[in-house]
Amino acid sequence: MPLSPEAEAEIARLRATPRPTLRSVSEGMEAHLYRPIPVLDHGFLRVVDYMGDDAAIVQAARVSYGAGTRAARDDTGLIRYLMRHWHSTPFEMCEIKLHVKLPVFVARQWIRHRTANVNEYSARYSILDREFYIPAPEHLAAQSASNAQGRGTPLGADEAARVLHWLKDDAARAYDHYQAMLSTDGQQGLARELARMNLPMNTYTQWYWKTDLHNLFHFLRLRADAHAQHEIRAYAEALCGVVRDWVPAAWGAFADYRLGGATLSAQAVAALKRRLAGETVTEETSGMTRGEWREFLAAWG
Amino acid sequence: MPLSPEAEAEIARLRATPRPTLRSVSEGMEAHLYRPIPVLDHGFLRVVDYMGDDAAIVQAARVSYGAGTRAARDDTGLIRYLMRHWHSTPFEMCEIKLHVKLPVFVARQWIRHRTANVNEYSARYSILDREFYIPAPEHLAAQSASNAQGRGTPLGADEAARVLHWLKDDAARAYDHYQAMLSTDGQQGLARELARMNLPMNTYTQWYWKTDLHNLFHFLRLRADAHAQHEIRAYAEALCGVVRDWVPAAWGAFADYRLGGATLSAQAVAALKRRLAGETVTEETSGMTRGEWREFLAAWG
Amino acid sequence: MPLSPEAEAEIARLRATPRPTLRSVSEGMEAHLYRPIPVLDHGFLRVVDYMGDDAAIVQAARVSYGAGTRAARDDTGLIRYLMRHWHSTPFEMCEIKLHVKLPVFVARQWIRHRTANVNEYSARYSILDREFYIPAPEHLAAQSASNAQGRGTPLGADEAARVLHWLKDDAARAYDHYQAMLSTDGQQGLARELARMNLPMNTYTQWYWKTDLHNLFHFLRLRADAHAQHEIRAYAEALCGVVRDWVPAAWGAFADYRLGGATLSAQAVAALKRRLAGETVTEETSGMTRGEWREFLAAWG
Amino acid sequence: MPLSPEAEAEIARLRATPRPTLRSVSEGMEAHLYRPIPVLDHGFLRVVDYMGDDAAIVQAARVSYGAGTRAARDDTGLIRYLMRHWHSTPFEMCEIKLHVKLPVFVARQWIRHRTANVNEYSARYSILDREFYIPAPEHLAAQSASNAQGRGTPLGADEAARVLHWLKDDAARAYDHYQAMLSTDGQQGLARELARMNLPMNTYTQWYWKTDLHNLFHFLRLRADAHAQHEIRAYAEALCGVVRDWVPAAWGAFADYRLGGATLSAQAVAALKRRLAGETVTEETSGMTRGEWREFLAAWG
Repeated sequence: MPLSPEAEAEIARLRATPRPTLRSVSEGMEAHLYRPIPVLDHGFLRVVDYMGDDAAIVQAARVSYGAGTRAARDDTGLIRYLMRHWHSTPFEMCEIKLHVKLPVFVARQWIRHRTANVNEYSARYSILDREFYIPAPEHLAAQSASNAQGRGTPLGADEAARVLHWLKDDAARAYDHYQAMLSTDGQQGLARELARMNLPMNTYTQWYWKTDLHNLFHFLRLRADAHAQHEIRAYAEALCGVVRDWVPAAWGAFADYRLGGATLSAQAVAALKRRLAGETVTEETSGMTRGEWREFLAAWG
Repeated sequence: MPLSPEAEAEIARLRATPRPTLRSVSEGMEAHLYRPIPVLDHGFLRVVDYMGDDAAIVQAARVSYGAGTRAARDDTGLIRYLMRHWHSTPFEMCEIKLHVKLPVFVARQWIRHRTANVNEYSARYSILDREFYIPAPEHLAAQSASNAQGRGTPLGADEAARVLHWLKDDAARAYDHYQAMLSTDGQQGLARELARMNLPMNTYTQWYWKTDLHNLFHFLRLRADAHAQHEIRAYAEALCGVVRDWVPAAWGAFADYRLGGATLSAQAVAALKRRLAGETVTEETSGMTRGEWREFLAAWG
Repeated sequence: MPLSPEAEAEIARLRATPRPTLRSVSEGMEAHLYRPIPVLDHGFLRVVDYMGDDAAIVQAARVSYGAGTRAARDDTGLIRYLMRHWHSTPFEMCEIKLHVKLPVFVARQWIRHRTANVNEYSARYSILDREFYIPAPEHLAAQSASNAQGRGTPLGADEAARVLHWLKDDAARAYDHYQAMLSTDGQQGLARELARMNLPMNTYTQWYWKTDLHNLFHFLRLRADAHAQHEIRAYAEALCGVVRDWVPAAWGAFADYRLGGATLSAQAVAALKRRLAGETVTEETSGMTRGEWREFLAAWG
Repeated sequence: MPLSPEAEAEIARLRATPRPTLRSVSEGMEAHLYRPIPVLDHGFLRVVDYMGDDAAIVQAARVSYGAGTRAARDDTGLIRYLMRHWHSTPFEMCEIKLHVKLPVFVARQWIRHRTANVNEYSARYSILDREFYIPAPEHLAAQSASNAQGRGTPLGADEAARVLHWLKDDAARAYDHYQAMLSTDGQQGLARELARMNLPMNTYTQWYWKTDLHNLFHFLRLRADAHAQHEIRAYAEALCGVVRDWVPAAWGAFADYRLGGATLSAQAVAALKRRLAGETVTEETSGMTRGEWREFLAAWG
C-alpha cells in the first residue's frame, strides 16, 4: 500500500503539531496516531482518535466498586480481576476510532459487529477506485475437507495461477465497464448508485469505525481467532498490536483470559477432575457428544 | 421470482396446520405468514414470525402511564399520542422476523440499521446461486445533476441496452469462473470463502432479519423515503403493506406523523408564522441558508 | 403474593381462549403464559408473550451455515455447537416478554442489562402501592469479611429483629407521609413526581421487560450466579425454570457451557496441563497472581 | 455543592498539567474539563473526557458523502444539512464522558437511555453519603390538573413547609437506621447490599456516564424539554451549555432543528397549507383528533 504523496504530507502535517490537552494521554497510542498499518495488498488501518487508557478503566471500576478496592490491589491486578469476572463496563470507558481500507467481503463480516459507529465511503456519491484484493499465491487454498467453513491445503501452482488470472481479469473488465457506464462522454452516464453493482466483492472500500474497548475485545476474540477467515484476521492481528501499545494492562488480561484461555463445559470440567484424580475417561463415560469429545482431545490430549 | 415446487409445498405445509396459542394474534399478519412477496427481479420478503399487535402497544403504554389513561382515550388515540410525543418504548414491544432475499449492495445499506438481529446465508459454508439483480430498463437512469446521490432522467434505449449487456455478461462470466474455481473436477477446488470474492455486488443473498416495531418504523422512515435508492425502497414499500395489516393503528399514526408529516427548523416555524400573519418572507429575512430556503420553498410554496 | 380476585379472573380469561396461529408454538411456554411465579414476599414474574422455540434457532443457523449442516448433526447437537463456539446470533431469533413486579433496588441492577425493551410503571402518572420488600429473617446476613460485595453469616435473632423493625417502621412512615403529601383533602396536594422521592428503595415497582434469548442467557449467567445478590438471583432462578420449558435444547447447552462450565486463563490451562502430566504446580511457578491462584485452588483443588 | 478541599486540590492538579497530544482538541471543552457544574442542592456534572469536535463530524460525513461535498458547502452548512436530513452517523463520531452526582429517582429516568456506558457507585461495596435532594420551596408544586404527569401551581407556604419537614425528617431517620444497621459496634452489622434498601429515592448516587453526540442530542431533546421533570431537566440544561462550547456548529444545528423546531403530522401540514391559502380550518374539517387540534392551536394560534 504505497501512500500517495498527498496522503503522506497530510499525515506528516497532523503529526507535526501536538497541542496541549488536559485529558488523559496514552503515549503508546500517540505514536500510532494517523500512521497507516498496511494490511493485505492495498488495505490499511490507522488510528485517527482515541479516548482513555488503562487508568480510565481503573477509575471507572473504582467509582463502582468503591475506594476500598484501592488499597487491596494495584491497577494491573484490578484490571485482571475485572476481566476474570466479566465486569465489562469499565472497559467500555475507552474508545477508539479507526480509518480502515478493506475489501467489501471483509467489510461485510466486520459490520456484523453492531455495537460500533461507522461512516463508510459512499459509492452512491463517489466513484470507487480501481483497487481489488488479489490474494498472494500462498493464501490460495482448497476448501477444507474437515471444516465446512475453512481452508485446507494450498493450491498447486497451476491451479493458483488459473485462479489469479480469473480474479484479476474479471475485476479489470468489471471496472472498465463500471467506468464506461459512468462516463458522460457521448452518453448520459449511468447513476453511480447503479453502476457500482457491477463491481466484484474484492473491491476495496473504506470507512471510519469507532467502538469501545469492551466491544473491540469481543471483535478481536472472534476475528483474531484461528477460525476467522484469513483476510479479516489480518486486520484483527494488526489491531492487536495497536491495543497492546494503547492499554498494556488491559491487553495483558485479555490475552491471558480470552485469547489464550479456554472455556470448558460442565462435562469437560468433570472429565478433567476425573483425570486429575487418576481416572481414565472415555468418550462413553464423558457424557460428551462425539464432536465435543473430539475437541476435548484436541485441546487436552 | 417463481418459487420452486419444493418451496411452494413447504409454504403450503406450514400454512395448513394452525396450532392453538394463548398469545395475542394479529389476523392481518396471520394472512401474510410464510408467503413471499416478490421484490425486484429475483428477490422477496416474507414474514416468518411476529410478536404482538396494536393491543400490546397499548398494554405497555398503560403499565407506564397508568390505568388513569384508560378512561381518557381509546386505543387509537393513545397510540397517536405516543407517536406524536416520541414515546417510543411501547412500540418496541412488538417484534417481526422476516426472511429476505436481496442483492448484496442492498444488503449493505440495510445492515446499517444496527438494532436488529440477523442471520445471513454464509458463502463461506455454502455456494451462492446463479442469480443477479438486473434492473428493468425503465429503472436505468442517469446520474442526477442536482443530487449527488440520486438518479435523474432515464437512459436512452441504446445506452440502456449497453448497460444491461455489460451487467448480464460480466455477472455470467464471474459466476462461470466462480464455479470453475470451486470445482473439484481434476483439481483441488478453491475454498468457498475465497471464490465468492469474484462475484459482483448484484449477486443475491438472503437472511433472516428480526427487529422491533420502533426500529422497523425508523427503517421505513429512511428507506421508504423518496431519497432512498429505488432498490431498497422497493423492499421498504413491500414492508409497509405488511405493517399496515399487522398493526393498523400504529401504522396509521406512523403514516400521519412520520411518512406524511414534516419537520421544521426554528427558522421555518418563524417564517410560517410570519406568513400566516400576512407578512412576506424572503430568503434574506428568513434566517435560513440558501439550501434551507430552497427546501422550504419546495415544501411550502 | 396473593393475587387479587380481579387479577385471577383476568388470567383465567386470557388462558381460557386459545386462538389458532400459524407461527411456531412452544408447548412448554404455553403452559406458563400469563401465570405469575411468586418471587420474594410480594414480587412475581410472568410470561406475557414469546416468539420462537428451539427449531427457530436451528432454522436461523441453517440459513447461515447452509443446508450442508442438515445431514451432519441433529438439532440438539447443532445448538450445542453454536453455544460452544459463541455463535450467538441464532439465539437472538427467540424473544420473550415478561411482566415483573420487583423492588426498586433490584430493578436498578436489572436495568443495567441494556439490550432489552422496558416499560415501567410510572410514579409520575400513578400512585405506588403500599408494598415493600422485607427480607425473611434467614436472609438477613452480616457483611462478608472476605467479599466486599457479599453477605456472610446470618444475623443473630436480636439483631435481625431490630433490622426488621426499622425496615418495616421506616417504610410505613415514609408511605404514610407519601399519602399525606399527595392528599388533596384540605390542601393542594404535592405532584406525584415529587412525592415519590420520599419512598425507600425496597418499594415495589413493576415493568414489562422484553429481550432475546441470547441476551437473556447473558442476564442469567450473571444474575443466577453465586456472586449475584440473593434478591435478583431469586428472579433469575425463577426465569431459569421458564427457559428450560421454553427451549429445552438451548437451555441444556447453556446449562452445560455457561452455568456449569468454567473459563480458564492461559496460566490456568498451563497449570492443569502440567498437573495432568504429573507435575506439582505451586503459586510461584504458576505465573498467577495471588488472587488467581486462590480461585484456581478453590476450583481445582 | 461545596467541594471538599481534597476534591478541589485534585481538580487543580488535573488542570495544572496539560500534556501534548496529536488528537483533535476542542478549546471550548478543555475549559470545562474536570470542573463540576453544580446542579440541584448537592449534585453536579463534570466532563472527565471527550473525543472529537465539529471537524470530526465533517470528516466522517466526507468519507461517506465524498470529497465532492468539499467544494459545495462550508462545514457549518454541511453539519446543518446532516441534522436536517437525519444523517445521524457522523455525529456518533464524537464522544463525551461525564461524572455526575444525582438523586436516585433522577438516575432511574436517566438510565432509560440505553445507548451509553455507565459505571455507578455501588452501594453493595461502599457506604452511601448522608446526602438527600430536598427541593427548594419554590419547586414544590401541586399535581397538575391538566397533565397527568406534571406539576401545576406552587404549594402554599404552610403546605410546602409540611412537605419539607417530612422529606428531611424521614431521610434523616432512614439514614440514621442505615448507619445503625451497618454498625459493627457490639453487633455483627448488616450487609451493605441489604441495608441500602432503607434509604429513600432522593438519596444521591454518582456515576461515570459516556455516550456519543448523536445519543446525547437524543437525551437532550427529551430531557431539556418542557415536559421533562424539573430535576432531570436541570442536568440536561447544564449539559446544553457544555455541548455549546464543545461543538458550536453541531449545537447550533441541534438547537434550530430539534430543540427549537417542530414536527407536524400530515393533517397539520394540510391545515397550515389551507390557512396559508386563506382558508379557515376548523377542528371538524382538520381531520385531527381533539387532542391533536388542541395542540395544533396551542402551537399555531
